[in-house]
Amino acid sequence: MKLCLIPGDGIGREVVPVAAAALQRLLPAVQLQQADAGWECFVRTGQALPDATLARARECGAVLFGAVSSPARKVEGYRSPIVALRRELNAYANLRPTCTLPIAGARQDVDMLIVRENTEDLYIGEEQRDGDTAIAIKRITAAASRRVARAACETLLARGMHRLVIVHKANIMPLTDGLFRDCCREVAQSYPQIEVSELLVDTAAYQLARAPQQFQALVAPNLYGDILSDLAAAHGGGLGLAASLNQGDAGVAIAEPVHGSAPDIAGQGVANPVAALLSVALLLRHTWQRPDEAQRLEHAVRDTLAAGIATPDVAGAAGVSTAAFAQALLARL
Amino acid sequence: MKLCLIPGDGIGREVVPVAAAALQRLLPAVQLQQADAGWECFVRTGQALPDATLARARECGAVLFGAVSSPARKVEGYRSPIVALRRELNAYANLRPTCTLPIAGARQDVDMLIVRENTEDLYIGEEQRDGDTAIAIKRITAAASRRVARAACETLLARGMHRLVIVHKANIMPLTDGLFRDCCREVAQSYPQIEVSELLVDTAAYQLARAPQQFQALVAPNLYGDILSDLAAAHGGGLGLAASLNQGDAGVAIAEPVHGSAPDIAGQGVANPVAALLSVALLLRHTWQRPDEAQRLEHAVRDTLAAGIATPDVAGAAGVSTAAFAQALLARL
Ligand SMILES: CC(C)[C@H](C(=O)O)[C@@H](O)C(=O)O
Ligand SMILES: CC(C)[C@H](C(=O)O)[C@@H](O)C(=O)O
Repeated sequence: MKLCLIPGDGIGREVVPVAAAALQRLLPAVQLQQADAGWECFVRTGQALPDATLARARECGAVLFGAVSSPARKVEGYRSPIVALRRELNAYANLRPTCTLPIAGARQDVDMLIVRENTEDLYIGEEQRDGDTAIAIKRITAAASRRVARAACETLLARGMHRLVIVHKANIMPLTDGLFRDCCREVAQSYPQIEVSELLVDTAAYQLARAPQQFQALVAPNLYGDILSDLAAAHGGGLGLAASLNQGDAGVAIAEPVHGSAPDIAGQGVANPVAALLSVALLLRHTWQRPDEAQRLEHAVRDTLAAGIATPDVAGAAGVSTAAFAQALLARL
Repeated sequence: MKLCLIPGDGIGREVVPVAAAALQRLLPAVQLQQADAGWECFVRTGQALPDATLARARECGAVLFGAVSSPARKVEGYRSPIVALRRELNAYANLRPTCTLPIAGARQDVDMLIVRENTEDLYIGEEQRDGDTAIAIKRITAAASRRVARAACETLLARGMHRLVIVHKANIMPLTDGLFRDCCREVAQSYPQIEVSELLVDTAAYQLARAPQQFQALVAPNLYGDILSDLAAAHGGGLGLAASLNQGDAGVAIAEPVHGSAPDIAGQGVANPVAALLSVALLLRHTWQRPDEAQRLEHAVRDTLAAGIATPDVAGAAGVSTAAFAQALLARL
């Protein structure tokens, strides 16, 4: 088994080594390879996602991606490496679970999954400026909608659940979001065990904020999935804990904490490695089919948190360093 | 003063009369005119927003819009009447405040405003389907971005506040969302009292869910404003309480509860009229420049809720009917 590590910028460089160490403890035979990407990489090499990185990612088939910083303004030649990587590896479904963890103040009984389409919608980068008007193209295809719906249904059943909510805004965009909705319905209907319903994206945001406990899984176009998964993460105890897996066919996958590079806390040694650790657990379970190792890792994370050991984003003034958390976690593996 | 009442469908018909009665108590000289719109109107007449309604709305200059139902599938000739009305009246800024109200379980110390652009973005209705691919156009113009930014700045200052957050996703859409962001910055910088910052829409959703208390005002393109204002409403005690005002130049305005037509509870006499009442308060304050009447109405709503009188969406099993709430409220005016 091979894993390509792309720490990226900021706290990506602090959390990826912790997750890599945990993985090595669980699967000593795993081969880890380092690769470069991100804003600092762009400044240094002129490429945010160097060809060598892409080649290494392809060769490994699995990636752990930390986080990257993006420039505040449009910079010629720069495109988000995570968006490019998702597309290049055809990792078309982004699994973003939120589960109640044993920390103070977390909402109880949340165990839900957002499945985000990863390859199209407004993320295709087709924009134009003409004088004082700019337009962007939102593209939805039946094929991409169907395959993400299938991934959502399969993952839902694999998690022992059966309720799927399709998220869209088809009252305003009957052709694009309507197509997404119809394709998802069609696919979901081929799974007799799955109970399917739908929500407008604004209503979904409202319901997620009010009562996330009601959801098992939601499937959404790219941008809504981006927004709703951050929102859900807030109810799971924060972005420091939010894991994700970008999944394609043929065992290609990118494990990716939902958080960004967090320049405000980077370099202080207090980044929360839980999101990266749980992302690796998703990779173990869904891509590598190693449910036992996935569970051991998840339990170790829970046990560490339940012992009151957590970084400052979760534990405030009682928070420990990334290194101390890592040590406590590794001792539990 | 004239107000065009458009109750629409479902609970729109239950809450608009309550708000109209309260307004009449406050301003006995106000002239109320009824007009038709919505799904049932479309089924009956073939027009979701009849020309006569539009003419009446224009003539009155001010509208109280209840809610309308939309069809689940694309129906030839049907377009959302509220979207059309916003555009036709050029009510380009949608003010959506969220304030802590005296009800059980509400987040404390929330007093914030989302200003949503109302005329463009993905709401322009430009969509095409070609085989298995559909596209929609997201349009952002400098003029619309600037005028909504100006409305946001003016309203912010009128509320005695000074912090404005621009919401965008310019890391993915540097041309469209970048234009929105740049125009908002430019306008905000011409107000020396205003402190301006920016957030990506996913981060804004996250921060709104975690700590809405940190915000004074956010300005956002149409779709993000739609999603974030529903999310904010969840923290203000629910959609039954969430008011909005669609505002343009020259005193044209549409007061509009954020909630929909709620077919699940329509006709049961339990709809919450607070959102409609507080929408009328916004109209009194911002359009008609009647701050005293606005305050009397807001106080009456607060006093009624503080007395434990509320509909079931807020008070659960202890909830009273719309009529009982209305009576208690009118007694306090
Ligand atoms: C960094 C950014 C391009 C990315 C996205 O929008 O997909 C991030 O927000 C995420 O959710 O992974
Ligand atoms: C009914 C719908 C068209 C509308 C919108 O999306 O603007 C509603 O969600 C709102 O927020 O007022």
